[in-house]
Amino acid sequence: MQDNKKFMLEAIKLAGENVEHNHGGPFGAVIVKEGKIIGKGGNKVTVTNDPTAHAEIVAIREASKNLGTFDLSGCEIYTSCEPCPMCLGAIYWARIGKLYYAATKEDAAKAEFDDSFIYAEFAKPKTERKLQSVQMLREEAVKVFEKWISKEDKIQY
Amino acid sequence: MQDNKKFMLEAIKLAGENVEHNHGGPFGAVIVKEGKIIGKGGNKVTVTNDPTAHAEIVAIREASKNLGTFDLSGCEIYTSCEPCPMCLGAIYWARIGKLYYAATKEDAAKAEFDDSFIYAEFAKPKTERKLQSVQMLREEAVKVFEKWISKEDKIQY
Repeated sequence: MQDNKKFMLEAIKLAGENVEHNHGGPFGAVIVKEGKIIGKGGNKVTVTNDPTAHAEIVAIREASKNLGTFDLSGCEIYTSCEPCPMCLGAIYWARIGKLYYAATKEDAAKAEFDDSFIYAEFAKPKTERKLQSVQMLREEAVKVFEKWISKEDKIQY
Repeated sequence: MQDNKKFMLEAIKLAGENVEHNHGGPFGAVIVKEGKIIGKGGNKVTVTNDPTAHAEIVAIREASKNLGTFDLSGCEIYTSCEPCPMCLGAIYWARIGKLYYAATKEDAAKAEFDDSFIYAEFAKPKTERKLQSVQMLREEAVKVFEKWISKEDKIQY
């Protein structure tokens, strides 16, 4: 069997196990580096009471821990469904180079996981979003950035 | 002092402490429910080797743990800087109702934290993104969604 088919079937298997064991939504993800799985996970939102514990985030956190770095350059992610905006953002921050996905956002929406609302919110100016946004104390926060900029021993990422 | 000013100063203080202790980027966040802080955190990317450990995610995870639920409806988030796409997505999934922020994305970009690249990628069709996307095995994954849809004891979120 082709390797990438094998990895995707593993992600889908994790999604299925999640449904059986009631650990969270029907989603699974696997991170691969140089042909080896270095992190994987199912959605753990309900079992851990963590709204950020989507399968991709769980897998990224495990892969980073296993490799001892926040930089997953050279890795691929296999996810049983197209990533939501949170997970797509996480994939970029982790510098993962390639995304394989199986089901589409539309398939997920049929199962009542609809992130099109969030994607639509992103495209709006802040003032038109459902999430109210209020700016305050900007100058105080900018001082912290200035401290960061002038800090010589900072660890950049 | 106005309560919301106090909460934002706490978020900014966490950002400043993060710079001092070299725990991660110059960012802090606080979650408030009914006038009380129920979760907070600084950016912990470099100290924990977790690319998803932005201040908002750290604070959301702590608040959810403390409340014992993945649903932070009725909560507010105070963040020292406008959220990146990953964190904005997490705020929506957590159902946080109101966002207070201090510094802007442009201020963060000056300190070399530039998420405008990610926001721009989101706006593009998948085929034009820098992140290569490949679809495969959709039918296998859809079977898992069908299992979820017909499952009677599922925990929805």
